[in-house]
Amino acid sequence: MTSITQKNHTKIEFKYEEAFKNIKNEVNRVLTSAPNVIREYTRHLSTTTGKFMRASSLLVCAQDDKGLIPQNAIILASAIEILHLATLVHDDVIDHAEIRRGVVTLQKKYGNRTAVICGDYLLSVALKMVASASEKEEYLDRKIPDFVGRVCLGELYQQINNGNYDLSVFQYLKIIAGKTAGMFEAAFFAGTSLVEKDEVVIQKYARIGRYVGMIFQLTDDCMDFETTESVAKKPVQSDYEKNVITLPLIHTFKELKDFKNKAKEQRLTRAEINSMVKKAGGLLYTRTLAKKYYKKAVDSLQALEIKEDKKEKIISIIDKAYRVF
Amino acid sequence: MTSITQKNHTKIEFKYEEAFKNIKNEVNRVLTSAPNVIREYTRHLSTTTGKFMRASSLLVCAQDDKGLIPQNAIILASAIEILHLATLVHDDVIDHAEIRRGVVTLQKKYGNRTAVICGDYLLSVALKMVASASEKEEYLDRKIPDFVGRVCLGELYQQINNGNYDLSVFQYLKIIAGKTAGMFEAAFFAGTSLVEKDEVVIQKYARIGRYVGMIFQLTDDCMDFETTESVAKKPVQSDYEKNVITLPLIHTFKELKDFKNKAKEQRLTRAEINSMVKKAGGLLYTRTLAKKYYKKAVDSLQALEIKEDKKEKIISIIDKAYRVF
Repeated sequence: MTSITQKNHTKIEFKYEEAFKNIKNEVNRVLTSAPNVIREYTRHLSTTTGKFMRASSLLVCAQDDKGLIPQNAIILASAIEILHLATLVHDDVIDHAEIRRGVVTLQKKYGNRTAVICGDYLLSVALKMVASASEKEEYLDRKIPDFVGRVCLGELYQQINNGNYDLSVFQYLKIIAGKTAGMFEAAFFAGTSLVEKDEVVIQKYARIGRYVGMIFQLTDDCMDFETTESVAKKPVQSDYEKNVITLPLIHTFKELKDFKNKAKEQRLTRAEINSMVKKAGGLLYTRTLAKKYYKKAVDSLQALEIKEDKKEKIISIIDKAYRVF
Repeated sequence: MTSITQKNHTKIEFKYEEAFKNIKNEVNRVLTSAPNVIREYTRHLSTTTGKFMRASSLLVCAQDDKGLIPQNAIILASAIEILHLATLVHDDVIDHAEIRRGVVTLQKKYGNRTAVICGDYLLSVALKMVASASEKEEYLDRKIPDFVGRVCLGELYQQINNGNYDLSVFQYLKIIAGKTAGMFEAAFFAGTSLVEKDEVVIQKYARIGRYVGMIFQLTDDCMDFETTESVAKKPVQSDYEKNVITLPLIHTFKELKDFKNKAKEQRLTRAEINSMVKKAGGLLYTRTLAKKYYKKAVDSLQALEIKEDKKEKIISIIDKAYRVF
């Protein structure tokens, strides 16, 4: 990424749009300079993600009073996106395992081992990038692996509870607080750290990041049940088909005990599941909770001393997570 | 690990034996305080490894003129062992894949996904530990992920060349220089960094570490072909059975073209392979190369200004890698 390396010796700041473009270039550079196998692998991943929500969260938080963003924010935001990509690559291992059940995916030709090693490689590249960002707060080197650990634990708890039809709301929220919210919290934490010295304020931003992650995941959970049959015919499995029990289903099980037993004992079609979840108010319940997190996020934001432009940008990120506006 | 935390605020140094004991405790603490699933997983791994060669390499290099080892060395050495463990956990994913071919292993009940996430978790814990070591050289935060990346690339190249019967000696050495020697080099590099400021000297130690890794892997490769049939009946696959082409086999293929074609076309028994590799001088060739690295390592060591006790300890590590004495 020439624009970064050229300006390496002077303290350069960027406007948001320029910074965002630089991140896309930097992530692209990392993936392009990676060995061929990783490139093949990540190319289709980059097409399926592409919103760079974690990166843009970090950038916005790193804006100073003039709306400018330090160069380190670009490095850290690129690292966060690559970390996210690493988790996606490792998720392919799960998809691969599902091939045995008859669903064919693109991953087939790469195999588990390649997916695991590629993910590890991307993880190491990302953490090296974090450490290479100069003039940043030293504790970020410790904090970022910490968030990665939390994401792993969330994934782990989800894995343990795969197929657990008695999963409680509390347990579920704990899972997604790690699995999804961990990385958003990391983005808000790291971005704010670059322009703010007060630990209390940094933590306040980090909490907003956690809310954004919760909103994002709960909305995702709803969308999974709103997918129509025609879309479902693609080789993409629903959460239920993957034995992942999410909040809309947990609520439905609570409302309709008979349905829970039926879902446990036999495979239900996507249409059956979707209609029951809707009927039992599972989507409404989940959307209502997402809305609560939305309100918490906005209220926390309003309580901060913050420039209007920065506030608006963060609200736009919260909106994107909520995906209603 | 109480002895570390208690002494956290004073600069404490340890004798080698005490430091080594502390590492075992610290690694054990990390594995014990990890979530249950990881504990189940890593318990049997810890019984199969247990020599702590990378950790002891780091400790020995971190000895000062009085033979004392700083506290940071214990943290870094524990981190290196946990990194090593993380790669072993991810190796389980491969073993798991092999289950489909009829070989049953303990991993079956955990599944790929758990293995992947556990490995990621251990990786993040290790890198967090590296960053948490105080008063260390800052570049270690960048260097350690760098070495991890090299190990991944080595694994990746091995994976690409899985079943490649035309693999060259040069290509093979490149693979193991990453896969195995990377972590030994990291251990020598990190340990020396704690007591030595001269970059040139640090690099010299790091090179010895690389040689140790090469010796270790080449010796391992030979031992794989020396395993008797009775041992082979255990659910442990030989490199050949896993399609991993190592140096003894590469040499044998060069010597006996007909054998290469035969090995490619049909499954040979372990006894057939072992006897042909021995007959063609594959083991002798590999041992001779290991011996060359042994000589390089010892010569490099002799050229250093180094206390007799430290030199002897490093030679004992080289001997252990060579596994003949």
